[in-house]
Amino acid sequence: MLRHLRDAGPRSRARIAVETGLTKGTVSSLVSELVERGLARDGEVERGGAIGRPAQSVELDGRRIGGIGVEINVDYLSVLVLDLRNSVVVAHRVALDVQALAADVVLDAVTDLAVRALDECARLGVVPIGMTLAVPALVDVEAGVVAFAPNLHWHQVGVVAGVVDRLAARTGARPGFPIKVDNDANLSVLGEFAMGSVAGTSDLVYLTGATGVGGGVIVGGRLLRGAEGFSGEVGHIQLDPAGHVCGCGRRGCWETMVGLAGLFRMAADAHDVVRNPSLDLDQRLEVIRRRAEAGEPRTLDALSRVGAALGLGASVLVNVFNPRALVLGGYFASLGAYLLGPVMCELRARVLALDIGGCRVELSRLGFTAAARGGAHVAFETLLDDPTVVAVAGEW
Amino acid sequence: MLRHLRDAGPRSRARIAVETGLTKGTVSSLVSELVERGLARDGEVERGGAIGRPAQSVELDGRRIGGIGVEINVDYLSVLVLDLRNSVVVAHRVALDVQALAADVVLDAVTDLAVRALDECARLGVVPIGMTLAVPALVDVEAGVVAFAPNLHWHQVGVVAGVVDRLAARTGARPGFPIKVDNDANLSVLGEFAMGSVAGTSDLVYLTGATGVGGGVIVGGRLLRGAEGFSGEVGHIQLDPAGHVCGCGRRGCWETMVGLAGLFRMAADAHDVVRNPSLDLDQRLEVIRRRAEAGEPRTLDALSRVGAALGLGASVLVNVFNPRALVLGGYFASLGAYLLGPVMCELRARVLALDIGGCRVELSRLGFTAAARGGAHVAFETLLDDPTVVAVAGEW
Repeated sequence: MLRHLRDAGPRSRARIAVETGLTKGTVSSLVSELVERGLARDGEVERGGAIGRPAQSVELDGRRIGGIGVEINVDYLSVLVLDLRNSVVVAHRVALDVQALAADVVLDAVTDLAVRALDECARLGVVPIGMTLAVPALVDVEAGVVAFAPNLHWHQVGVVAGVVDRLAARTGARPGFPIKVDNDANLSVLGEFAMGSVAGTSDLVYLTGATGVGGGVIVGGRLLRGAEGFSGEVGHIQLDPAGHVCGCGRRGCWETMVGLAGLFRMAADAHDVVRNPSLDLDQRLEVIRRRAEAGEPRTLDALSRVGAALGLGASVLVNVFNPRALVLGGYFASLGAYLLGPVMCELRARVLALDIGGCRVELSRLGFTAAARGGAHVAFETLLDDPTVVAVAGEW
Repeated sequence: MLRHLRDAGPRSRARIAVETGLTKGTVSSLVSELVERGLARDGEVERGGAIGRPAQSVELDGRRIGGIGVEINVDYLSVLVLDLRNSVVVAHRVALDVQALAADVVLDAVTDLAVRALDECARLGVVPIGMTLAVPALVDVEAGVVAFAPNLHWHQVGVVAGVVDRLAARTGARPGFPIKVDNDANLSVLGEFAMGSVAGTSDLVYLTGATGVGGGVIVGGRLLRGAEGFSGEVGHIQLDPAGHVCGCGRRGCWETMVGLAGLFRMAADAHDVVRNPSLDLDQRLEVIRRRAEAGEPRTLDALSRVGAALGLGASVLVNVFNPRALVLGGYFASLGAYLLGPVMCELRARVLALDIGGCRVELSRLGFTAAARGGAHVAFETLLDDPTVVAVAGEW
């Protein structure tokens, strides 16, 4: 019922009874229990038209519980805590050259960031309910292990055990909430599906632009995971056998054409400020944007070539999935104004179905926060399955 | 319950009651009704171990009803009638240069073939229950219209209305069963899922090799249709920007590398017998196979290049879907012995997940009949939804 309230929005007890098939008595008693636990509260009075008396609506509360999403990416770590209503409680990002560090050192830094978020939650009176780590990788979700992350140079890294052990060492006790790890693009598309501009769109392809290119897909309202959880690997589609050498060792992969390294290479010489890896990514992208706004020809040419290559690869996915919406995330969103034209041009030329099969193309409004938001959002799953994991107010 | 009996296999009335949640009395009365209509019959006696008395099992019958699948392809038309147990009742194929003919003329020929199958059904006492037409095309299933078939040069052809009208004109009455049209690769993967070597495998990618290359995908046990039914368009993935010009007008599409025209071009000179379009496709493929068996270098080289290109494109789909099985159909199956080696080699080199993500690669045992089989199979849907569309024996 908590899930219904979250997905369907505020509504009267009577309406919940009709929609869930429960009796009014059961709904009332379940609602009372949710209210006691701070997960629901009385909302506005619903006036259902001329007939019937106005009914008190029930809405989601959950301002006192937090889902935690942590993103490990090539250039940064970020943490985001959402309450049950998807409002941001805590958000931090730190620049980190993850490729240059051993996995152990990165997990130390992840733990630092998690402890910082947990401390802030404690200060705010927010109880952590779960944590999800997002990694640009093939992930064995069941085992909590990153199987292979080409752009981090990680093989078989036990991310969940590593973070749990470190948190236990730092805080003196094993964390009292579940910790999971998943692919960043999978979590991003779940974030977009839950709270992005395409929320609720049941056939969805999401592309995240960073050092690599990740894909997350919703088919019929459900995340496409594949037989062993390794779906959505789109960055290494070979689009040009004569292209640049990729981080994976192959040639002409899509991400050599549309990943950040490709953009920076096309846009500037080796010693240019945008190719300085010690600068924060946002600053480098801001330089690109300013140059584009000023009409600098090399920057505009680079963006136009990246846009065309983005459209070329995206056309494969639109032909294969025929999604209702294609969402461009990560840096594709922040520089979207310059990419969208060439993307649409390629899609129109290359998608077989008329009018690109009825697919809308949108720039993510969640940007670089999509993966951490999705991670925080799915961290509430345990609670939705069993709301009694949250104590009633008096027991805190 | 009929659907349960078909999908789960022979079982006792008691077991059906447990599995469906119906009472034993209801199951017995429903079974009697199915038996009266010739859709079920008593099967073997089930001995459930030491305890309990042996129980009479019930099994699917339906030998007196037929689902009709008709395939319209570039080089041939075929018809196949299956009974409810997926046994072939009628099967015919005729060579036809569909590209060279107007759609009206092709629909005339389709009607001829359908009438021939209907006559044979009548002679055998088999009642037609539905007909599905398979076309290598973007299909508007709801409207019964082929939106676009690049290799047939068809745009907006009202296939269902065309066949219904022609059948009515030929037989003096509108057909008494539903007629539908769908994409050939979609129907093929449904055929493989129902009765191929990978039957029941819930994450499945199927590729059909013919003039074009079609893709059909099962995700979580359901056909991937996409937002508007236009999913699975894989033939025009651009794998080489410097490649051959495709029938679609673009350059370097996958099907220029692995479609039949590509194979024949690589394997033989212009005046060679295998490049004679007036010969039956099976004969031309048989010539290729005999030359390969004899070790003819140009043929072997052509097959090896087609196999590598097939693996290259398939690696995109395996990375994107992470399927449990990849099924190669059409001519990819008939020449599979020569293609499988290079396909596996490319998949191992290009799929990011270890051991190609646990994906089995199989040659279709249904070959060129997969689309018509799938069409015949789904033609029973109306019956499964409502078994009373079949009259009881005495009423025939």
